[in-house]
Amino acid sequence: MEIKYDNIKVIGFDADDTLWVNETYFRDTEHKFARLLASYETENKIDQELFKMEMKNLSLYGYGVKGFVLSMIESAIDLSNGKIAVDTISKILDLGKEMIEKPVELLDGVEEVLKQLSKSYRLLLLTKGDLLDQERKLEKSGLSEYFHHIEVLSDKKESNYSNLLEHLEVEHEEFLMIGNSLKSDILPIINIGGKAIHVPFHTTWVHEMVHEADDNGGYKKVNNIKEVLEIL
Amino acid sequence: MEIKYDNIKVIGFDADDTLWVNETYFRDTEHKFARLLASYETENKIDQELFKMEMKNLSLYGYGVKGFVLSMIESAIDLSNGKIAVDTISKILDLGKEMIEKPVELLDGVEEVLKQLSKSYRLLLLTKGDLLDQERKLEKSGLSEYFHHIEVLSDKKESNYSNLLEHLEVEHEEFLMIGNSLKSDILPIINIGGKAIHVPFHTTWVHEMVHEADDNGGYKKVNNIKEVLEIL
Repeated sequence: MEIKYDNIKVIGFDADDTLWVNETYFRDTEHKFARLLASYETENKIDQELFKMEMKNLSLYGYGVKGFVLSMIESAIDLSNGKIAVDTISKILDLGKEMIEKPVELLDGVEEVLKQLSKSYRLLLLTKGDLLDQERKLEKSGLSEYFHHIEVLSDKKESNYSNLLEHLEVEHEEFLMIGNSLKSDILPIINIGGKAIHVPFHTTWVHEMVHEADDNGGYKKVNNIKEVLEIL
Repeated sequence: MEIKYDNIKVIGFDADDTLWVNETYFRDTEHKFARLLASYETENKIDQELFKMEMKNLSLYGYGVKGFVLSMIESAIDLSNGKIAVDTISKILDLGKEMIEKPVELLDGVEEVLKQLSKSYRLLLLTKGDLLDQERKLEKSGLSEYFHHIEVLSDKKESNYSNLLEHLEVEHEEFLMIGNSLKSDILPIINIGGKAIHVPFHTTWVHEMVHEADDNGGYKKVNNIKEVLEIL
């Protein structure tokens, strides 16, 4: 089936790992966290327990660095049976601050694509991270001028996108979403009758993984975001 | 000078301490925090140091419970010179979770006012807290049906409001803001040519306090949100 991208008026871009590097920093921090706890457990066990803790806390804390730091602290206390040194907890707080203060590293081709598309489409930044954090990254990225505005969603499920498009008064078939996460950026959009282009990133958080079998088609996949310009 | 509220089309409501109780829970938690650290310092000193820590971290963490919890932990470590028990840090994490899970306690008259105004105006919920947290409170409050949508602002300064109104395509003079914080809800709106009604709450966070001298007039103050119905 030929996929048409003719009627598009508004394009939503995922931010983390679509425009700039993000997941890599979480993985780096997890390694550092595991090293801090190396006397208690193997890195594999620490990774598993931290992930479980994040999932347990997700409905309370949502996405973003602050909830991640709170889960690291709780996990460190659990894994050490309450024997963790207070100094190590300070170091975990520092790891969080380092993440927040990281410079923004744009992915290849991003600026060129946004510059080009912003001439003919209304571009939105759609993220489920922390608003302040995402505003700061957008500011540092120098990409603000290309976006009409930022929308932070508490989650990226079908209902979140439907509500957003209703609020923006955009028809579903006139909306295109571009992002790296099949689960969050692509499949929910296809399911509500929107268009999507998948730009995979080399690292995916376990929570964002779906089997390719869940892919019901209806979207294109490109290796570099620059290929979007050839499709539109 | 007579203040006119004739041209209003869109009304923004602050959420915390305007629609429902919030600051009270922060004050309660601060008391509990001070009791946890009672062996190290006086409550007065603990309050002061926690507030300083929150201000130091504000540009990194922004507003909301998660940043508050991270600042409590950092403050506990500092105040105890690193001698705080790990068990106490667990208790601080629990205090944060309790805050997030608190039931929503609506302020007097809120539902009646929203029900009435939603018939003639487009109502928005404008908050600078955490999106997930605010969505959850709105859900619990049973007030969702009255709001067109929620906008989370990373801060409530003039530029945040101007950007929002531009994005929503609302003229400044057609916008009315209702809220409890002179600093965040009222003065910036007056300064950009919008309308405002101040509904004070009995407890105000130090960071939100302004001298009444900063009040440049141009808005009405009511004791109960129900009086808004008489003004409009």
